[in-house]
Amino acid sequence: MSNEYTKMWEKLNLDLDAHDALLEVLGKFYGDIYLSQQNRLKGMEYLDFVLSEVHGLRIKELQEAKEKGQKVVGTFCIFVPEELTLAANAIQVGLCAGAEAGKEEAEKIVPRNTCALIKSFIGFKLARLCPFTESCDLVVGETTCDGKKKAYETFGQYVPMYVMEVPQQKNASDRELWKTEILRYKDKLEELTGNKITAEKLKKAIKTVNDKRRVLQRLNKLRAVIPTPISGRDVLLINQISFYDDPVRFTQKINELCDELEEKIKASQGVVPENTPRLLLSGCPMAVPNWKLPYIIEGSGAVVVGEESCIGTRNTRDLVDESGESVEEMIEAIVDRYLKIDCACFTPNQERLDNIISLAKELKVDGVIHYNLLFCQPYAHESIKIEKALQENGIPMLAIETDYSMEDVEQLKTRVEAFVEMVTP
Amino acid sequence: MSNEYTKMWEKLNLDLDAHDALLEVLGKFYGDIYLSQQNRLKGMEYLDFVLSEVHGLRIKELQEAKEKGQKVVGTFCIFVPEELTLAANAIQVGLCAGAEAGKEEAEKIVPRNTCALIKSFIGFKLARLCPFTESCDLVVGETTCDGKKKAYETFGQYVPMYVMEVPQQKNASDRELWKTEILRYKDKLEELTGNKITAEKLKKAIKTVNDKRRVLQRLNKLRAVIPTPISGRDVLLINQISFYDDPVRFTQKINELCDELEEKIKASQGVVPENTPRLLLSGCPMAVPNWKLPYIIEGSGAVVVGEESCIGTRNTRDLVDESGESVEEMIEAIVDRYLKIDCACFTPNQERLDNIISLAKELKVDGVIHYNLLFCQPYAHESIKIEKALQENGIPMLAIETDYSMEDVEQLKTRVEAFVEMVTP
Repeated sequence: MSNEYTKMWEKLNLDLDAHDALLEVLGKFYGDIYLSQQNRLKGMEYLDFVLSEVHGLRIKELQEAKEKGQKVVGTFCIFVPEELTLAANAIQVGLCAGAEAGKEEAEKIVPRNTCALIKSFIGFKLARLCPFTESCDLVVGETTCDGKKKAYETFGQYVPMYVMEVPQQKNASDRELWKTEILRYKDKLEELTGNKITAEKLKKAIKTVNDKRRVLQRLNKLRAVIPTPISGRDVLLINQISFYDDPVRFTQKINELCDELEEKIKASQGVVPENTPRLLLSGCPMAVPNWKLPYIIEGSGAVVVGEESCIGTRNTRDLVDESGESVEEMIEAIVDRYLKIDCACFTPNQERLDNIISLAKELKVDGVIHYNLLFCQPYAHESIKIEKALQENGIPMLAIETDYSMEDVEQLKTRVEAFVEMVTP
Repeated sequence: MSNEYTKMWEKLNLDLDAHDALLEVLGKFYGDIYLSQQNRLKGMEYLDFVLSEVHGLRIKELQEAKEKGQKVVGTFCIFVPEELTLAANAIQVGLCAGAEAGKEEAEKIVPRNTCALIKSFIGFKLARLCPFTESCDLVVGETTCDGKKKAYETFGQYVPMYVMEVPQQKNASDRELWKTEILRYKDKLEELTGNKITAEKLKKAIKTVNDKRRVLQRLNKLRAVIPTPISGRDVLLINQISFYDDPVRFTQKINELCDELEEKIKASQGVVPENTPRLLLSGCPMAVPNWKLPYIIEGSGAVVVGEESCIGTRNTRDLVDESGESVEEMIEAIVDRYLKIDCACFTPNQERLDNIISLAKELKVDGVIHYNLLFCQPYAHESIKIEKALQENGIPMLAIETDYSMEDVEQLKTRVEAFVEMVTP
């Protein structure tokens, strides 16, 4: 990234030296993991550009929008309905949570036995390294796990925090609670922005967010073809960037990329040989720049053909019903759509088990790698069940538990390589 | 315990050899920690008896009740309203969860990074060591933490499991959800027992459970007097046994013990010298026989004068309003009373902070020891805040994180002794 943004970062009170150092490391990391790939789609250039400008041009856009009176809402979870945020003419962005930053400082205010993602967003704030967090007029958390739920109490001392309560079951009374939370968020947005969420605006916003999901569904269909026409790393990056980029522009660019993908498929051009072991990656979300495990997997001679994750199919599988005309009808549709999310926060959560099995079969995978952030209890519990269910369906699974450090890379490589060898058809 | 119960245990499918070994260890442990105390109240003999017969006579009572058609409901949490259980003519008991048992087996079905309490109740079941669990017609869990919420899904494969959803905030919609859960539990009990919960029965049950809380409130008031007339260990044991014993008998016996305590107080007879450092124990619940930390504390020259815990004041502070006459009115009173619980599962949970500060002041403690079960995230997060809030009030705090193993006893001793020395007036 260029120095033309230094003034902006200074204004945002970033720690400039540390931020420069971070960008340098990230740039190198990105070069190794992404730019080194052969036969990449031309359309990935847009993603390379967005990523290289994620703390630059995109932040500039946010700042310009703020100057014109728009508000910026930061989130960490796919339960925060972007439809409402957009309908209030605000911008919704994911916040930095995918790298080790300010870890020591973070561990002074949250327990050491907290998952890396949580320590990361707190560390990024304390170390003044995330221009997204610093641009936020509101940070919206949710009660999806103990770690985040309690960390937000502390995080709220540093950012303008707002918490949505996600229920833990899916009974009628849970739907009622969730509807109340959706309406409370709508009120909050109207208060924050001064904009009324009208039926017209909401209808348009639902369409915008659905379109983003549709193009990611299209991408997921195309990437599943044999021979695999795009690397798993690239698809993960696209999913990651879907949380940062302008949704309309993003949808257009990814549709273009999908057109290119169709050409490649017609020409039977894969990025890997036809007999490459196909793996499904399942579990905890991988926020930018958490590419450690996918890099190891694809460096071990396998290819990732699906991400069963919040930064993956969990976020894109279900659309909001578009037939509603009144605000009330659309709110109902939003409530229903978000309650379809098969997050491990629910009990029971049989849907996720079923979804993984059918996804694994649909994608014709040779195995599943379950990714668990150390100390993430909900996914760790489900991992044990998933392994059993997959086994019963004849699909091998490797359970990986790790954090953002690079200390275990060699150990992970050994385990992944052994697994890939085992599942190679 | 005597061999007269062997047949009963065999019928309950306990692992007899392992169970004998467990009882032997427990007996020795109890002797060291409890029976070695000087100047104990005569009333503690009842507690010694109940504890010594906790897997014997008490189980026999349960079996006899079951033969007469009564149902047994097992619980792990103070959110399960005993008022309703009793009103359905069922018996509510806590389940074994305070010792290392079947740990290796448990770690095959729940993650290793699960707190000792959860691993314990699963381990007790897998190792066939808990006659309470084996006597249950229903086991009632709740969604108070990720660990339990997800572990109950697995536990449900081994016991007749039922889960109540505890909300995570205390807004009007949360109260609605909780009321629905209370009513759902009422229906479940009526279905299980075949008994209708009438206004008359519920009124009596509310009185019974309130009386149990009242006598524990009385005990807490008396034990706070200087010089301390009863050890913290003994009060903890009384609180622990309140989850196992018949509530009416228990209340009567503890009232008698309190009468004796009043005599002691009149005679200024303390169990420790007047200048003994007074400590408040705060944090995670300590289930029988989890006496490790209190024993270390009181062996280090301090005395515990309060338990800010679910097996302590959190369970006894608030009564159910007794003025209701209709079932509906009493249900509302139950809903309100249970939502006063200041569990770390709530966000925010400022009440707990406030309650600890006032309790510490009221009890004139010299310091607080915060007890955290390793991997219990909600209490670990709150521990950091509590330490800060206590510091601001000039009250020192020591944060202990541990599990049920004895490996860290020497290390804990060193830390506790240093803390006690520091706070000695």
